[in-house]
Amino acid sequence: MEKTKKFLLPESELPTHWYNIMAEMPTKPMPMIHPGTRQSITAEDLYPLFAKGLVDQEMNRTDAWIEIPEEVREKYKIYRPTPLVRAYNLEKALDTPAHIYFKNESVSPVGSHKLNSALAQAYYCKEAGVTNVTTETGAGQWGTAMAFASKVFGLDLAVYMVKISYEQKPYRRSLMQTWGAQVVPSPSMSTKAGRKIITERPNYQGSLGTAISEAIELAMSTPNCKYTLGSVLNHVSLHQTVIGLEAEKQMEMAGEYPDVIIACFGGGSNFSGITFPFLRHNFKDGKKTRFVSAEPSSCPKLTRGVFQYDFGDEAGYTPLIPMFTLGHNFAPAHIHAGGLRYHGAGTIVSQLMKDNFLEAVDINQLDSFKAGVLFAQTEGIVPAPESAHAVAATINEALKAKEEGVKKTILFNLSGHGLVDMSSYDQYLAGDLVNYSLTDNDIAENIAQLEKIL
Amino acid sequence: MEKTKKFLLPESELPTHWYNIMAEMPTKPMPMIHPGTRQSITAEDLYPLFAKGLVDQEMNRTDAWIEIPEEVREKYKIYRPTPLVRAYNLEKALDTPAHIYFKNESVSPVGSHKLNSALAQAYYCKEAGVTNVTTETGAGQWGTAMAFASKVFGLDLAVYMVKISYEQKPYRRSLMQTWGAQVVPSPSMSTKAGRKIITERPNYQGSLGTAISEAIELAMSTPNCKYTLGSVLNHVSLHQTVIGLEAEKQMEMAGEYPDVIIACFGGGSNFSGITFPFLRHNFKDGKKTRFVSAEPSSCPKLTRGVFQYDFGDEAGYTPLIPMFTLGHNFAPAHIHAGGLRYHGAGTIVSQLMKDNFLEAVDINQLDSFKAGVLFAQTEGIVPAPESAHAVAATINEALKAKEEGVKKTILFNLSGHGLVDMSSYDQYLAGDLVNYSLTDNDIAENIAQLEKIL
Repeated sequence: MEKTKKFLLPESELPTHWYNIMAEMPTKPMPMIHPGTRQSITAEDLYPLFAKGLVDQEMNRTDAWIEIPEEVREKYKIYRPTPLVRAYNLEKALDTPAHIYFKNESVSPVGSHKLNSALAQAYYCKEAGVTNVTTETGAGQWGTAMAFASKVFGLDLAVYMVKISYEQKPYRRSLMQTWGAQVVPSPSMSTKAGRKIITERPNYQGSLGTAISEAIELAMSTPNCKYTLGSVLNHVSLHQTVIGLEAEKQMEMAGEYPDVIIACFGGGSNFSGITFPFLRHNFKDGKKTRFVSAEPSSCPKLTRGVFQYDFGDEAGYTPLIPMFTLGHNFAPAHIHAGGLRYHGAGTIVSQLMKDNFLEAVDINQLDSFKAGVLFAQTEGIVPAPESAHAVAATINEALKAKEEGVKKTILFNLSGHGLVDMSSYDQYLAGDLVNYSLTDNDIAENIAQLEKIL
Repeated sequence: MEKTKKFLLPESELPTHWYNIMAEMPTKPMPMIHPGTRQSITAEDLYPLFAKGLVDQEMNRTDAWIEIPEEVREKYKIYRPTPLVRAYNLEKALDTPAHIYFKNESVSPVGSHKLNSALAQAYYCKEAGVTNVTTETGAGQWGTAMAFASKVFGLDLAVYMVKISYEQKPYRRSLMQTWGAQVVPSPSMSTKAGRKIITERPNYQGSLGTAISEAIELAMSTPNCKYTLGSVLNHVSLHQTVIGLEAEKQMEMAGEYPDVIIACFGGGSNFSGITFPFLRHNFKDGKKTRFVSAEPSSCPKLTRGVFQYDFGDEAGYTPLIPMFTLGHNFAPAHIHAGGLRYHGAGTIVSQLMKDNFLEAVDINQLDSFKAGVLFAQTEGIVPAPESAHAVAATINEALKAKEEGVKKTILFNLSGHGLVDMSSYDQYLAGDLVNYSLTDNDIAENIAQLEKIL
């Protein structure tokens, strides 16, 4: 009998609501705190920076289901529902009894899951009468998503792109420009924050922290302008739950339920997206699915960080956020999975981790690319360097199942493809990449600096 | 009521047979001719170069339906059936009464339709006991497809990649290497043909003609080795008919039948793929669909070439092929749609063109990129520079429908995405690209040289 490889949902099965896990968490996340007043952050504190609809979602701890506006659903149809795929060819290569499924978010026109939140954010900005938006991008996945989403909803977007990426990742820059965004290498002369840094360090190659500062400054000083962010925040995780909600229906079509769900971990957006809808069945229906985040060994916030109030950005401009962190001034090695180089985990994920609902593993750079190449050679798709961490963790689980001789159903999120990151595969194949290790001391010293914060 | 944007077929609806149009053509194509003996080419002439199964398909003029081997169907499931998409956002931007549909072949892991034939060719090579295969690639779409297909069926592949592309398109090279192929810049020192050229012209940047010669030479001098080709030949068109066969069912789901079908045109593989299954209803069922090929103004074989016996390659090593041609030594301008820079059209398409079943339009380079950007900004997907020609021709048809105030159903083939070609969009957006025009004299002079051939 012929085997089904891809489980496809018709557009009529596109989720009508996002799942807001905050409403159902056994322990709610602690609030963000204003670093000056030491008071809990309120919606009013956030309205100047973000569109109202997004702030209200950020603060909503009571409604488990939040309706997806019809205009957003219409735009989701450009690429959603995305396929759930049984990785038969990978299973065969590993000779494992495990059944491996992946949710293929790489089919979005921007090549990653980031568009799920970008479309929602652009919509709520448009709805609030906003005409201009700003954001920052490091590796470029979020920037490209926001560029297309802004075009779709008729907004003018300015993206501050970390200067070294601007130069090393010209394809991402071209993509943003093709979709009509203005892309500025950061640090730039267009903001006070940028000018200050350029004056002090003329050859500085930029950082996400600096780019955030510039994007925020531009948003605050431009009429009718809001700032947008691609991960970490609650409303971003909320939008990403379309991934898991679709996957839930698709696993049912496949006649299986996942024993383990795996996703790579940067700030937490794709991880939240695929896990939260399943996690609710652990909360309520006695399911015992394991949820495993795969982070890079060089940026191990969940496996080796501490749970602490910390700033969300390097410069310390954001509210204080309760999170697993390596310290906001932690400088991760320059691995190619640029989207995973963030010092902390979002509030919700951090609380769930603290409460033992989640697990975390770390993957070193060479193992991530080795896994990426095997996946490309078996399933065809070249994974983004970030997503290759999830592939590596999946392979480890599948090999463990083989060792133990147990059948196991594994689901992982293929958050994006690597077609615009081929230079990193090039360097891997040429033997030019290395692993980065951190001593306990490196981490402890950086975390020690946090004690004075709160 | 919510509108359906994507029409998806389940895997069970994947075609079981390819459609062999030669069996049903009112006038069969003339045979290929051996340039030495002046005799018609026979299967025996081709067996040394191509796998037997492929040669038999190449010569088959009687069976309208040829079964797709189960192993090929299984591998097709990695990305097939591909979506048929209603381009509502493009329609809206054009304010046209036309309904625009596109078949999205860009979802293949290699990013184009080329995999449809690569998987079939690798399968028949494997089945024939072949262990090694060779091919050439210009822009790189065919080479990447053959690289993945060879890995899937356990064959060792050597790709001769035109040297200037090898250097200017490093992402395509990396992709082929990631899938395990050996990629050699052509001309190379690995063949007599390559050494001869390097000796005469040390700085020669290569051409498809030279790369073909090298790939053929390597195949003929390596034990258990066959050569493969990504377009022009009958068996390649045959494999590509899965595109149109799926589209036929999907148009039925959409409740419409195309008045016009459009595809870009290089050697004819994606054009054949989407048109032949519909063309049979013009032959047999009284349908009056128009079939329009979109070729670059700088390489206008169908709009301005002649129907003539000509060589398939620049050097004149292949059999003589009855084709619309600009002359085998025609040197097209260096447009970015590298896949459309071929001097001739395949035998079947040429005969159909001669018999007035097909139309052809030419699109200049700037219009192709302008159309590509509009498509990216409305439908999200950045088209390959080749496919952007089909988009441009579609836009022209849609605007004509608007002008004439008639409803019209247009279907075009999005043969591939442009994510690995962003440098060409970069140059377009920077204003660095130009159009290339050919005088009637340029063309006539080149064609005049053909008269001595046959």
